[in-house]
Amino acid sequence: MDVFVPFAAHRPKTRLSGTFTIEERRAFADAMLGDVLTAVQSAGGSPTVLADRPIDLTTRVGAEVATDVAVRVDDRDLSPAVNAVLADAVSNTTDDAVAVVMSDLAIATPDSLRRLFVADGDVVIAPGRGGGTNALVVRDPAFRVDYHGVSLRDHRRIAADVGATVTELDSHRLASDVDERGDLTEVLLHGTGAARRWLVDAGFEPSSAAEARAGVRRRTDD
Amino acid sequence: MDVFVPFAAHRPKTRLSGTFTIEERRAFADAMLGDVLTAVQSAGGSPTVLADRPIDLTTRVGAEVATDVAVRVDDRDLSPAVNAVLADAVSNTTDDAVAVVMSDLAIATPDSLRRLFVADGDVVIAPGRGGGTNALVVRDPAFRVDYHGVSLRDHRRIAADVGATVTELDSHRLASDVDERGDLTEVLLHGTGAARRWLVDAGFEPSSAAEARAGVRRRTDD
Repeated sequence: MDVFVPFAAHRPKTRLSGTFTIEERRAFADAMLGDVLTAVQSAGGSPTVLADRPIDLTTRVGAEVATDVAVRVDDRDLSPAVNAVLADAVSNTTDDAVAVVMSDLAIATPDSLRRLFVADGDVVIAPGRGGGTNALVVRDPAFRVDYHGVSLRDHRRIAADVGATVTELDSHRLASDVDERGDLTEVLLHGTGAARRWLVDAGFEPSSAAEARAGVRRRTDD
Repeated sequence: MDVFVPFAAHRPKTRLSGTFTIEERRAFADAMLGDVLTAVQSAGGSPTVLADRPIDLTTRVGAEVATDVAVRVDDRDLSPAVNAVLADAVSNTTDDAVAVVMSDLAIATPDSLRRLFVADGDVVIAPGRGGGTNALVVRDPAFRVDYHGVSLRDHRRIAADVGATVTELDSHRLASDVDERGDLTEVLLHGTGAARRWLVDAGFEPSSAAEARAGVRRRTDD
């Protein structure tokens, strides 16, 4: 399956600006992108990075991961850029399906993506925590995305409007996009790739404090 | 499968005290408990509420749900109370397995619980967001729980110490326990039972604001 991975190359992960420097945000975003591309390939997908500006993918994710990954540049906002992909791709691909997988799904595994790719439905959605649309398979040429706001609700409505069936995939790994400091806990606890290694090397670890739910803390002793 | 559902009857959901009155917290906790018990039964489980004090279950969840649900009272903390269940139950049940499912999994469905019950492994864990242990199947009589802190990590270690295999279930529905205001968004977007109805009747709806991730707002016009 053709899998498009939108990637904000210039100012990634702005909501982590209180936790990371801009250089760290870029490095961490690159690590997550590399993990997502690797997981997509292991799940049998053919990934294309949908970047908002020209990027040197090899520099960002390494030569091994970058091999066989295409880059498509579109400087528009996320929704028009993805809709252009959908207009081109669905009905032009051999299996008449295209997937869109966000680049910050740092704990996505080949298994979770395989479940997404094989799920029945004209539109298959992996909801993000908080009502986003973290990953998507589109088999109906009339479906279009609108990532603004609570996109899960909008995508249910858009699918209904064009008569497309919707399947929602129940996956914590695909629900866990990494936007805020609290999300780093999931990467530390469930990650297996470069993003988790980067966090550990940068001194982060889960902190339980008195709360039932773990946060993260950064070592200050080095 | 015997399924124990721990329930704090006296002061439930303290981290929602900025959102709800104490009466509302109790009513909402009761609604979630009823939804969990219904889902457990639909998934083929035999639920017992593990309450921290005597409760009148019919008053809390209605006669229809309360039928065929046992109540076991244990006023100790969560971990010793569950460990007493494990000591009694595993090797005494017909299928040598017992499940523990938290009472605030308001978007748990029969499907997500069925996946939990049938998963292979001496210990099957449905991790909660933030490293908790939201649901658990135990088939090894030596395994014990420790819910304090980042319990997912502790349960991995305890299982390893007794030589028990661990399977982690990838489910957003089971990962979504309801502790904080932000968690209510999941109930509004994915709930299908009494807890969602209660929230809607109480005036809550998803609020997208400018953020990528939805929060909740409460109507003030009535």
